[in-house]
Amino acid sequence: MTTILSVDVHDVRFPTAAAGDGSDAINRGDYSATYVELRTDGPLVGAGFTFTNGRGNEITCAAVRALAPAVIGRSLEEIAAAPVEFWRSLTADPQLRWLGPEKGVIHMATGAVVNAVWDLRAKVAGVPLWRLLAEMPTDELVANIDFHHITDALTPDEASTILDKGRHGYAERLALLERDGFPSYTTSVGWLGYPDEKVRALTRAAYAEGWRAMKMKVGGDLDDDVRRARIIRSEIGPDALLMMDANQVWDVDEAIAAMARLAEVDPYWIEEPTHADDVLGHARIQRAVAPIRVATGEVAANRVIFKQLLQAEAIGVMQIDACRVGGVNEVLAELLLAAKFGVPVCPHAGGVGLCELVQHLAVLDYLRIGTSLDGRMVEYVDHLHEHFVDPVRTRDGRYLLPTAPGYSAAMKPSSVSAFSFPAGPVWR
Amino acid sequence: MTTILSVDVHDVRFPTAAAGDGSDAINRGDYSATYVELRTDGPLVGAGFTFTNGRGNEITCAAVRALAPAVIGRSLEEIAAAPVEFWRSLTADPQLRWLGPEKGVIHMATGAVVNAVWDLRAKVAGVPLWRLLAEMPTDELVANIDFHHITDALTPDEASTILDKGRHGYAERLALLERDGFPSYTTSVGWLGYPDEKVRALTRAAYAEGWRAMKMKVGGDLDDDVRRARIIRSEIGPDALLMMDANQVWDVDEAIAAMARLAEVDPYWIEEPTHADDVLGHARIQRAVAPIRVATGEVAANRVIFKQLLQAEAIGVMQIDACRVGGVNEVLAELLLAAKFGVPVCPHAGGVGLCELVQHLAVLDYLRIGTSLDGRMVEYVDHLHEHFVDPVRTRDGRYLLPTAPGYSAAMKPSSVSAFSFPAGPVWR
Repeated sequence: MTTILSVDVHDVRFPTAAAGDGSDAINRGDYSATYVELRTDGPLVGAGFTFTNGRGNEITCAAVRALAPAVIGRSLEEIAAAPVEFWRSLTADPQLRWLGPEKGVIHMATGAVVNAVWDLRAKVAGVPLWRLLAEMPTDELVANIDFHHITDALTPDEASTILDKGRHGYAERLALLERDGFPSYTTSVGWLGYPDEKVRALTRAAYAEGWRAMKMKVGGDLDDDVRRARIIRSEIGPDALLMMDANQVWDVDEAIAAMARLAEVDPYWIEEPTHADDVLGHARIQRAVAPIRVATGEVAANRVIFKQLLQAEAIGVMQIDACRVGGVNEVLAELLLAAKFGVPVCPHAGGVGLCELVQHLAVLDYLRIGTSLDGRMVEYVDHLHEHFVDPVRTRDGRYLLPTAPGYSAAMKPSSVSAFSFPAGPVWR
Repeated sequence: MTTILSVDVHDVRFPTAAAGDGSDAINRGDYSATYVELRTDGPLVGAGFTFTNGRGNEITCAAVRALAPAVIGRSLEEIAAAPVEFWRSLTADPQLRWLGPEKGVIHMATGAVVNAVWDLRAKVAGVPLWRLLAEMPTDELVANIDFHHITDALTPDEASTILDKGRHGYAERLALLERDGFPSYTTSVGWLGYPDEKVRALTRAAYAEGWRAMKMKVGGDLDDDVRRARIIRSEIGPDALLMMDANQVWDVDEAIAAMARLAEVDPYWIEEPTHADDVLGHARIQRAVAPIRVATGEVAANRVIFKQLLQAEAIGVMQIDACRVGGVNEVLAELLLAAKFGVPVCPHAGGVGLCELVQHLAVLDYLRIGTSLDGRMVEYVDHLHEHFVDPVRTRDGRYLLPTAPGYSAAMKPSSVSAFSFPAGPVWR
């Protein structure tokens, strides 16, 4: 038995805003984490977090504290025996639910707590999270999913069928990942805050490092977007993939018009062309810009939004986020929805620690759910990995399989204390 | 000039959970308010709040504190001169936006702050908020609306046309409201926490008081729902309206099946049949249950969700909420969207103070935007009005026009201190 005794919450912020890293059409922040540690009656600590953009990280910290009573005193075994009841004790609390429901601050805090529980479960099992999940019996995986409000798109039986099928060819897929790693793309080349010559230099360097898929930010002045896009395309040649990300800045008709111009550089996808809640808007844009794919998900609040994006044929790429939704349990539902509808998943990363988390989810998806690498890439951003105990490792533009037990969520204690807000030395 | 000098935030909670008031299929709470007072360099104080369900009210309070720097030091005149810039300083802050965007805790806090600004504006003008807005020049009203992400459904020109048209017949409509008040319905008869005989007695009493439209909660055991619905229908006769509210408990197919059974008592609408984010699900339910109307909105996060509910023909009744969305400015956009699509607005009330707020919005809608009473009713719940300085007044099941300057949002200082959490005497 492993019993959770306390929930420690840390407000950790990295001063990235000043450098222009992470600047886009909407966001310009200090990459931050609402960092949660579950202390137990044993030697292991469960680590989880949700990513925020700086100011306001104290609000998600407060939300974690509000959720903590649902975790303290519970054993991992009890949680594993009735996982949906546990998940609903966080997401369907009769008082806290009003603050979402299942969206925004309260749901992000749920994600941090739930992810910490999964980190602990994987550490207790002595395996990386991807392996714990990918090798779990079908019934047990299905029992971890709350199908409430998605049964019109995915039933437990359909989920079981997908997961059973995912056992075939497992060893071959695992061998391939062990040999080659998981495909990825880089977003480090084209932030809006960077001048043209920095974009060119970064693109050239990334290409030389082996990257064949790169993402740029768009949604500023359209002439600037076109000019920067041409620079990148000229550096990477016609065969490499160029993705674009508008971070929701456009209205629906504006997105369609902008992509008509940007089409000249052959974009592979347009990410977040409009407001994240606008399922119907994304569907209209997808019809208008095809064959360019519409991609979204980093700000999709929950499985109900993803369900609709798939039902409406609004997206060609689904970008799950590891900690905006309610943690691993909800991500499982989303991966299965994507598999059911035949849409490839390319997880959102960047920020702080998101690369560390989503590599596990992408690997799980390939090994057991989506079972294909066709159109699959994990985002990679080269920021802040040095603060993690088990940081991502890449080679030739691919993620190498994580091997340490857990969810790779643990931050170094020295980083937590140095960057704690407002008392850490960096902020004082 | 009136300059805002400080933002006082109070965590006010009323211990309603114990009595079963406000219990439904999903929520069971202590009605609470994140109560905001804007202190100025003059004698007037702007009051605003967002409603919460008890635990977690400290999180919305923290969010108000995070937003406060956008208000402190600004003058009302400056805000009125550039209202969308002001609104975006709250909703599109490059760091805080990530916590929503425009949904959940951070958006509810925005609503509290924005509503307090409008309360102050109306007090400075010396008129009730409904009059300030209903008699405002069209250009000025339009200038208060952020059309970002809704221009595919409503343009500023279309909004102007609706508002100009709303000037015709204004005096007659106002005279009618002054004489008769605004139609409403009561939700005080059929909470899930009440036993059958209490439901019967309350229904009988409400009918005797003049109510001809009543709402019951459904979504518990379906046989219980049918039995309670028959009790209410037998008490109110065939002509009075019986509305039902499932508070999102059903999945889509489950909602369709449940309403097929409940149709025997001739429900007028089914409110929140499924998850609040499920636009496509509501559309399927609406097609299946017609002529019963689908109603939703109290948990609709923002104008983008309302836009889609209207575009998808998913609702026959739109239930705006005064403080889940970003306050008066966003409600204006929603009222105009409803008018454009020809869907009647019946505001959500109940909770604490929501009746006080939404009466202004319903009156504004009738006087200047929707310009009809056909199918319009404001929810009425007989809870907690005694804590307000300018409480709602009703006669024969109708709201009387508020006359005091402001938005009727101010709570009595004695109530604020008695029910402050955790230090007030009620909670100690």
